[in-house]
Amino acid sequence: MGKITVIGIGPGNLDDMTPRAHKAIVAADTVAGYNTYIKLVESLLNGKNIIGTGMMQEIDRCKMALNEAVKGHDVAVVSSGDAGVYGMAGLVLELLLQMPQADRPQMDIIPGISAVNAAAAVLGAPLMHDFAVISLSDLLTPWELIKKRAAFAAQGDFVIALYNPKSRKRVEHIEEIRKILLEYKSGQTPVGIVRGATRDNESVTISDLENFTKEDIDMFSLVIIGNSNTYVQDNTMITPRGYKL
Amino acid sequence: MGKITVIGIGPGNLDDMTPRAHKAIVAADTVAGYNTYIKLVESLLNGKNIIGTGMMQEIDRCKMALNEAVKGHDVAVVSSGDAGVYGMAGLVLELLLQMPQADRPQMDIIPGISAVNAAAAVLGAPLMHDFAVISLSDLLTPWELIKKRAAFAAQGDFVIALYNPKSRKRVEHIEEIRKILLEYKSGQTPVGIVRGATRDNESVTISDLENFTKEDIDMFSLVIIGNSNTYVQDNTMITPRGYKL
Repeated sequence: MGKITVIGIGPGNLDDMTPRAHKAIVAADTVAGYNTYIKLVESLLNGKNIIGTGMMQEIDRCKMALNEAVKGHDVAVVSSGDAGVYGMAGLVLELLLQMPQADRPQMDIIPGISAVNAAAAVLGAPLMHDFAVISLSDLLTPWELIKKRAAFAAQGDFVIALYNPKSRKRVEHIEEIRKILLEYKSGQTPVGIVRGATRDNESVTISDLENFTKEDIDMFSLVIIGNSNTYVQDNTMITPRGYKL
Repeated sequence: MGKITVIGIGPGNLDDMTPRAHKAIVAADTVAGYNTYIKLVESLLNGKNIIGTGMMQEIDRCKMALNEAVKGHDVAVVSSGDAGVYGMAGLVLELLLQMPQADRPQMDIIPGISAVNAAAAVLGAPLMHDFAVISLSDLLTPWELIKKRAAFAAQGDFVIALYNPKSRKRVEHIEEIRKILLEYKSGQTPVGIVRGATRDNESVTISDLENFTKEDIDMFSLVIIGNSNTYVQDNTMITPRGYKL
């Protein structure tokens, strides 16, 4: 029996991937993941079997990865950011637990720097107080539930981080969310938009809740909306922790 | 003029600290942080000046660190987990921005693996859906606001991660939060408690919302409370992303 390791590779730059993740990829003989993520760790993959497919075939890809582990391979499943946040850790684990206990390969999960933490570091310090993380993708979650969560997070005055804020097929969702948040938050609330944090194409925009949807936002963007104390100074976004300075 | 780098060193094990963080600590001539965190990176500190103090003097420690940078030193401020989540990134940035622009040293923030991501990886995959992060420490935040946030997070059916769940002086807060959550969540909701993730003394407990406060919880524990779909199987905690399997 082989083993399967689900690995958070961090935001994209190998300098932001942990030694634990690095070693696990190097040790594996088979690597599975979105082609985009495979490409980010390409320099480590010489001679390995690759199970890389397009965006919409996660279940098949994870099943193939598990099958390879059952056959005796050392399989790494790579996921950008942290594999445990909208990544592959859950899916692989769920599939593994459906197998009879005796047939299961060993499974490990290696955490990585999540997109929200990478984006926050680029913006300044917007996550210094309680925050909520919400994905706007309604592929697997009812849109009504997503809207409900946004409303409750706003009422709790959480800093709010939005994953998957917009795709080519979902251009109106972010606008609906903006309107919901405006019921509870000021239009002047700072909003940071980070795309490709730590990557060559990194871009950073600071706007506010009234105007941020006019900026370029796509499925690779991470949006962070401040709480009622968040402010912007000299192009950095800060949510005070509460120290009297 | 020197520079100051605020560094998230991750959950504690050097294998979970990024190369970017590692290099920045090695390059610095001065390192500031809680003694506990200084100790975690001790093997990298040979010959460096150390600004280490007790738990309650964050502001003075960060001011000293900034002063050293102004004097021309390369200063690393180390913070466990991600420096941008209840860590030192915000405080150093706020102090820096109070200085006249011409006097400010260069500042960088290097993200690290946050405690919540490290704890999740140990438990299984509890953060696979929208989640809220709340600190129960009321040193800098009114207790009423913390309770309000817990109530809204529960109504939004977020997975909820609690930082600083309990200290010697705050033993009843976690019990109050449990009661608030029980108004909106089932008593059978899975709860994971992780202490010292990735460290030698790592401990993991899985309980439920009805009973979890009977377990050992202290200020080094991270508590993750599931959403209405979270389940426990074979000692792992899973929040399904929503795939039909």
